Amino acid sequence: MIGVFDSGVGGMTVARAIEQVLPEYRLVYFGDLARTPYGSKSPQAICRYSLENSEFLLKKGARIIVIACNSAASVATEEIRRHFPVPVFEVITPAVDAAVNGSISGRIGVIGTRATVGSGIYEQLIRARRGDAAVFSQPCPLLVPLVEEGWLQRRETKMILRRYLAPLRDHQVDTLVLGCTHYPILKELIRRRVGKKTAIVDSSAAVARAIRSHLDADPALAATLQRDGENCYYVSDVTPAASQIASMIFGRSVPLQKVD
Amino acid sequence: MIGVFDSGVGGMTVARAIEQVLPEYRLVYFGDLARTPYGSKSPQAICRYSLENSEFLLKKGARIIVIACNSAASVATEEIRRHFPVPVFEVITPAVDAAVNGSISGRIGVIGTRATVGSGIYEQLIRARRGDAAVFSQPCPLLVPLVEEGWLQRRETKMILRRYLAPLRDHQVDTLVLGCTHYPILKELIRRRVGKKTAIVDSSAAVARAIRSHLDADPALAATLQRDGENCYYVSDVTPAASQIASMIFGRSVPLQKVD
Repeated sequence: MIGVFDSGVGGMTVARAIEQVLPEYRLVYFGDLARTPYGSKSPQAICRYSLENSEFLLKKGARIIVIACNSAASVATEEIRRHFPVPVFEVITPAVDAAVNGSISGRIGVIGTRATVGSGIYEQLIRARRGDAAVFSQPCPLLVPLVEEGWLQRRETKMILRRYLAPLRDHQVDTLVLGCTHYPILKELIRRRVGKKTAIVDSSAAVARAIRSHLDADPALAATLQRDGENCYYVSDVTPAASQIASMIFGRSVPLQKVD
Repeated sequence: MIGVFDSGVGGMTVARAIEQVLPEYRLVYFGDLARTPYGSKSPQAICRYSLENSEFLLKKGARIIVIACNSAASVATEEIRRHFPVPVFEVITPAVDAAVNGSISGRIGVIGTRATVGSGIYEQLIRARRGDAAVFSQPCPLLVPLVEEGWLQRRETKMILRRYLAPLRDHQVDTLVLGCTHYPILKELIRRRVGKKTAIVDSSAAVARAIRSHLDADPALAATLQRDGENCYYVSDVTPAASQIASMIFGRSVPLQKVD
């Protein structure tokens, strides 16, 4: 199985992309709704939660871990790799690769939670691949609560987006990385506010393609992944709002199973 | 000691009110920042966290528990009373008493998180005290993230407040209960948007007065409370934003001590 975890339901944009790109493999998802959001927590807390989540997925039979949460990916990836002997994918590196390959001017914008932007991980990885890149990062902490409220077309959401994106527009970025798994839900609104000429990199699709290439190149690993059975969606807490967002992301009702 | 807990730093508005009304007693605070916010979690999760938080305060020497979190007060008060043999105060009942006593028309508005409003607790308690009261409740889930961002004077905050408060204004409530410990920070903005004739009930002050009366009437209990030593502020996670909000609430720097 391919195991995917996130602090909540935002990572389901990643699970959906994996279902689309790798429909032949079974997937198990864990959303840590009891402790969501991670973006405002300390790196130590995020690391501890991420190890617990990975352990849960491995116990359920996962042979690949996908960290579908930028806050966790930015601070806990190395720790997870040190602890568990399975391939670990995360949403940051594939998005960075897509941005660096796609950008012409080298002026790249990144939006994310405070934890993700504060970690400086995108800037560091983009610069490592392209020394002359100019990276402009903008924390957008209100976007997750706005999405979770379902305020997708509200005037306030558009104003807040405009306020967050104006500096990136002024910096004339030609590529914008959505550094949070909730943001693909706002993709069209973001596109309109950042300018038509800016390419938007959605990490969900990027990580799904990265796993595809890895499995194509490693048939022995691919053979260990379970193919039969339904995909399972576990959460550490259940709320009506979470079920609603899950349905919105998948375009169908998704049964969430609660675990402690 | 008087023990106070909240899901985060919002409950510090209650701690500050207790410091002002009961300066002679020592206070110990616990803010569960590692699992904040509670307002979007299930009642089962909130109950479990509340019992753990109470146990921590009792171990630190608390002889009174104050639930300074509306979400926890609305679903976990009875459970805490069943488990621990100490007086348990919460922010809801004193605010309800103040609203019922103060309202002339009996048209009372309540604002809070989804968990608090969804529990129906304010409506139930107000009706129990005044059968003819008309209670209008409005969930305001974006206000906590806006306060935690420090967006206290932003146009978007004012617009969102206007949107949340318009139905209560239309219902011509003469009393509005701030059913979340973060909201006193927005009190002046709320006052301007709900109309001058509406009295605002701030639960922080109400619970501090309730504890004062209780201790005045029970000198034996008062004698068990520690008076010497500094007040302590413990949190389960430390972030720069939390320290900033704590300073904003107290008007001075407050040292937050991290515990697991």
